[in-house]
Amino acid sequence: MIGTSNDSSQDLFGLMSRLYPLCRSITGDGVRQTLKILQEYIPIEIREVATGTQVFDWTVPKEWNIRDAYIKNPEGRKIVDFQACNLHVVSYSAPIRKKVSLEILKAHCFTLPQHPQWVPYRTSYYKEDWGFCLSHQQLQELTDGDYEVFIDSSLKEGHLTYGECFLPGSTDDEILISVHVCHPSLANDNLSSMAVASSLYQQLSRLSLRYSYRFLFIPGTIGSITWLSQNESRVSRIRHGLVLACVGDAGSITYKRSRRGNAEIDRAAAQVLRDSGAEHRLTDFSPYGYDERQFCSPGFDLAVGCFMRTPHGTFPEYHTSADNLEFLRPESIADSISKCMGIFQLLEQNKTYINLNPKCEPQLGRRGLYSSIGGQTDGKIRELAMLWVLNLSDGTHNLLDIAEKAHLDFGLIHDAASNLSRHDLLKEI
Amino acid sequence: MIGTSNDSSQDLFGLMSRLYPLCRSITGDGVRQTLKILQEYIPIEIREVATGTQVFDWTVPKEWNIRDAYIKNPEGRKIVDFQACNLHVVSYSAPIRKKVSLEILKAHCFTLPQHPQWVPYRTSYYKEDWGFCLSHQQLQELTDGDYEVFIDSSLKEGHLTYGECFLPGSTDDEILISVHVCHPSLANDNLSSMAVASSLYQQLSRLSLRYSYRFLFIPGTIGSITWLSQNESRVSRIRHGLVLACVGDAGSITYKRSRRGNAEIDRAAAQVLRDSGAEHRLTDFSPYGYDERQFCSPGFDLAVGCFMRTPHGTFPEYHTSADNLEFLRPESIADSISKCMGIFQLLEQNKTYINLNPKCEPQLGRRGLYSSIGGQTDGKIRELAMLWVLNLSDGTHNLLDIAEKAHLDFGLIHDAASNLSRHDLLKEI
Amino acid sequence: MIGTSNDSSQDLFGLMSRLYPLCRSITGDGVRQTLKILQEYIPIEIREVATGTQVFDWTVPKEWNIRDAYIKNPEGRKIVDFQACNLHVVSYSAPIRKKVSLEILKAHCFTLPQHPQWVPYRTSYYKEDWGFCLSHQQLQELTDGDYEVFIDSSLKEGHLTYGECFLPGSTDDEILISVHVCHPSLANDNLSSMAVASSLYQQLSRLSLRYSYRFLFIPGTIGSITWLSQNESRVSRIRHGLVLACVGDAGSITYKRSRRGNAEIDRAAAQVLRDSGAEHRLTDFSPYGYDERQFCSPGFDLAVGCFMRTPHGTFPEYHTSADNLEFLRPESIADSISKCMGIFQLLEQNKTYINLNPKCEPQLGRRGLYSSIGGQTDGKIRELAMLWVLNLSDGTHNLLDIAEKAHLDFGLIHDAASNLSRHDLLKEI
Repeated sequence: MIGTSNDSSQDLFGLMSRLYPLCRSITGDGVRQTLKILQEYIPIEIREVATGTQVFDWTVPKEWNIRDAYIKNPEGRKIVDFQACNLHVVSYSAPIRKKVSLEILKAHCFTLPQHPQWVPYRTSYYKEDWGFCLSHQQLQELTDGDYEVFIDSSLKEGHLTYGECFLPGSTDDEILISVHVCHPSLANDNLSSMAVASSLYQQLSRLSLRYSYRFLFIPGTIGSITWLSQNESRVSRIRHGLVLACVGDAGSITYKRSRRGNAEIDRAAAQVLRDSGAEHRLTDFSPYGYDERQFCSPGFDLAVGCFMRTPHGTFPEYHTSADNLEFLRPESIADSISKCMGIFQLLEQNKTYINLNPKCEPQLGRRGLYSSIGGQTDGKIRELAMLWVLNLSDGTHNLLDIAEKAHLDFGLIHDAASNLSRHDLLKEI
Repeated sequence: MIGTSNDSSQDLFGLMSRLYPLCRSITGDGVRQTLKILQEYIPIEIREVATGTQVFDWTVPKEWNIRDAYIKNPEGRKIVDFQACNLHVVSYSAPIRKKVSLEILKAHCFTLPQHPQWVPYRTSYYKEDWGFCLSHQQLQELTDGDYEVFIDSSLKEGHLTYGECFLPGSTDDEILISVHVCHPSLANDNLSSMAVASSLYQQLSRLSLRYSYRFLFIPGTIGSITWLSQNESRVSRIRHGLVLACVGDAGSITYKRSRRGNAEIDRAAAQVLRDSGAEHRLTDFSPYGYDERQFCSPGFDLAVGCFMRTPHGTFPEYHTSADNLEFLRPESIADSISKCMGIFQLLEQNKTYINLNPKCEPQLGRRGLYSSIGGQTDGKIRELAMLWVLNLSDGTHNLLDIAEKAHLDFGLIHDAASNLSRHDLLKEI
Repeated sequence: MIGTSNDSSQDLFGLMSRLYPLCRSITGDGVRQTLKILQEYIPIEIREVATGTQVFDWTVPKEWNIRDAYIKNPEGRKIVDFQACNLHVVSYSAPIRKKVSLEILKAHCFTLPQHPQWVPYRTSYYKEDWGFCLSHQQLQELTDGDYEVFIDSSLKEGHLTYGECFLPGSTDDEILISVHVCHPSLANDNLSSMAVASSLYQQLSRLSLRYSYRFLFIPGTIGSITWLSQNESRVSRIRHGLVLACVGDAGSITYKRSRRGNAEIDRAAAQVLRDSGAEHRLTDFSPYGYDERQFCSPGFDLAVGCFMRTPHGTFPEYHTSADNLEFLRPESIADSISKCMGIFQLLEQNKTYINLNPKCEPQLGRRGLYSSIGGQTDGKIRELAMLWVLNLSDGTHNLLDIAEKAHLDFGLIHDAASNLSRHDLLKEI
């Protein structure tokens, strides 16, 4: 169930390379084009919600589109060009075409003095304004004079666009995977998650599943609010969920727990990360971050955690032009996919069994449950796993409970349960 | 609500200087004079309970008064004089006037060999006897011969005297502040607490209060037993309480939890001390200490903790003549007042709110709840506090719960709640 | 109640010396002889369960007996002789007499390459086979040629034999002490436990007991399964239990908790070990080990822990000829007895009292409960123990609860409760 072939990894890099240049925002054609490209990989349904639609406390904003933008210096030379890098324009900038003094220009420019070569990423969704982002070095080279600023954007009645992709399982219980798609040319944040989510869909679609999986490709905040608002009646089906963000950098994995703190998804993620033996971080829920903020708002309180590598704001490339395709690591993408699949596999397999022979141990040797074992050490631990499963399968412990108590890998516990079930020593309840 | 001006600090030192020379004990005129002086500062009612009154398992003892006492050496010179230091007489010493040999004298003398300059403080409340306390140096200089011992005390039917001061709030729920007033010329133990309690009353009386505050100025042990015995029907109104003891030394604050261990007062004290950033100690309840022993006896089990600086018995000056006015630190007195006020403020403000917009976050920006923010970092943390309050205001978390979970200062959380309430996003329940 | 005189310690070594040479296994005359010798010390009843009897998922196996065994080298000289050391034959070896090549012989020989002088202990209870155990050094010296292997054993319908010894107390509530008796010439594992259990019986039988004590001397695994199967209706009487194993080596004590994890026996053992001040280890339950595996199977889930010194498998002498009488330490045997008696004493004394004077402290001084105290420090701690007992005796705390909360020795708490009861301040409920 696990693993990404080199082929599919290449494939995902192809996907991200195509998506990278698009100028995404919380609305507009950038998101539409992104979702259309994703449709070549997985069967996403594209949904449109009209500007002005009330979604809880919020209103779907005007649709923003941009065709071109630049700054020309007093000599008439384009010194900042949207066509070269879409981060140059503050997202949701209002249209403008005029000559401004250097002083006024500077008041509308954003730079990163600590990283003078990098262009920052800025937005102004809910306050109408205009602005440019450029490297600090470039800003410092500007001389006095009148500059022509041009932003050919539009902010009009239109739609908020998002993608949804549903993979039915044998039950109506759902696992939610949510990915924000509103960032322009930033790679880790969040092309990495679009690629990982696509791969997860592809891999899951080949399996026989207990859970149904719902994938959301949505603009951050307003997207999850819109989806929750329009799908309130369906929300109770969501048993577990992961928000994916920044899953392609070289760092180790960070799992941020759901508001519940000890939900099955939280324990499943912790178990998979522990079993992996790889370095990782578990952090408690806080109401700051990605769309888990909405899924875990008190009126919903869904069991949705956030799966990241290096968390937002803790790597210098975050929200800058340095978060580009080169910042991604193929092995990190593959590892994120593998760990998420591990979590889903655990949830699929995390059932409760009852020991059919609860009084004393059954005679395992008579059933060949010792001899079927390969190496000595390996055999010992498989035997121990069987003893733990038998001892704790009293109807109150599921396999994850048992793995936690036994301090053994979930896979070992699950194999033990399968083995014991085959010999009629255990029954799923 | 916080802070002691230098003026009032001076004032408190004036108060303590006047109280210092009085020979207090568990009964007698020393306590009466003490309470009368305190009445100049706060409206204490002085209560008298007659000798012989049954108070639970105890009986109010005879009243003890002392006018004079001394030891004269064989040459007829006063070598120990009660008028110079009232610690020289064992409290509750029976009257005596006779000549005794050095050997017999020594059997009735108490010293501190480890601190040869200091005079110890000793009592013999419940066993009729007589005795003197003196410096070890002085004891060692005594030569053979007959000494005249004179104690002009009386132990007669009379009263136990205590003070009570009630500050009504808008509800009948009470916060108890209890201070022992039975020690003679000892400053930290417990003039410091009389001064602090007086200041707390003064400061609280200027505020609009939810809780009613009851101040007790009582002799240790027998005083709290008497009060509880005579006010049993009122005890259920006490929601929170602090016993104050040794609150003026240079050490950091020690808070000893109530028997309940996790009462609101215990958590409030811990939060205020943590928020202060200052060094402090939290200790679990134990049935040894001050009057919390009685308030926390199993038949009452009140939520009463003990607020101290350096705990009894852990500083060498404890119960010696070295616990004098010079042992006190004005800044410690001020800090004790400030921390207690912080605890009361937290209790006053610790309400439960309900998020009126529980499904997803409300749009804070639209309401200017971002722009109203000053500095960047300061703004971020205020925004985070608002998100925490919104996220946890589901009816099951009060503001203290939220501050604890958010690891943020209670003040920040309270400000956030006020801010959100003003914008009708939150409602007190 | 505690302590083993040098005499009885000598006695126990005499007992172990007599038991050491016997060739015990899970059935057969070795166990019968062992139990008969134990009968000289304590009134064990010997029980026989016929081969083929169904005991839960298991069947009582054939009875195995052995008279002689050897290997003769090509020159006809006995190079391995069962008469010299009964570990030489794999337990439950089928009878054999034939000439085999060195190659075939080696396939049936077990050695310890890491300890070339030691002979390992091996069994093949449930797979019919034959084998020899010898030192690795000896194996390496064997030269090519035909070897005569001779095992004069029998594997026939017969019985499983075990011993049971019941010491009635004033109630039907039972404490179980279970010892495995199936190992041949191994001293720590488990002659040590037979000796300790015998001594515990002797000491307990001299006392007035609240609990009834049931001692089992049983073959490992099949013995406890057989006993549980044949005594299912009695099992509910077992309130606490200890499996004893490896209690004579030089290591400190290890207590392995019952499956319940926080049963009274688990807390009693922890308290006694903590009070002792001696180094010790507490480990959580795991379903691998001794007969606690069966007593703690989910269908029984008895409060039975395992009392050991160095745990099985963690000392190199384990299951080898080096676990001989010289490996035992008389002081360890005595200490194991003393600690077990301490645990039983605690359980006997762990009652719940109610403070008859719950409102404020009673006046202890009036009752001489201060003056009855010897040394100063000793007195302080006895006074503190009384205050703890009074404070927590609200009907919800037994004496062990109080000792845990007070961080005081159980003995101090128990003495305080006795003292207070004598003065009618406390009543057992």
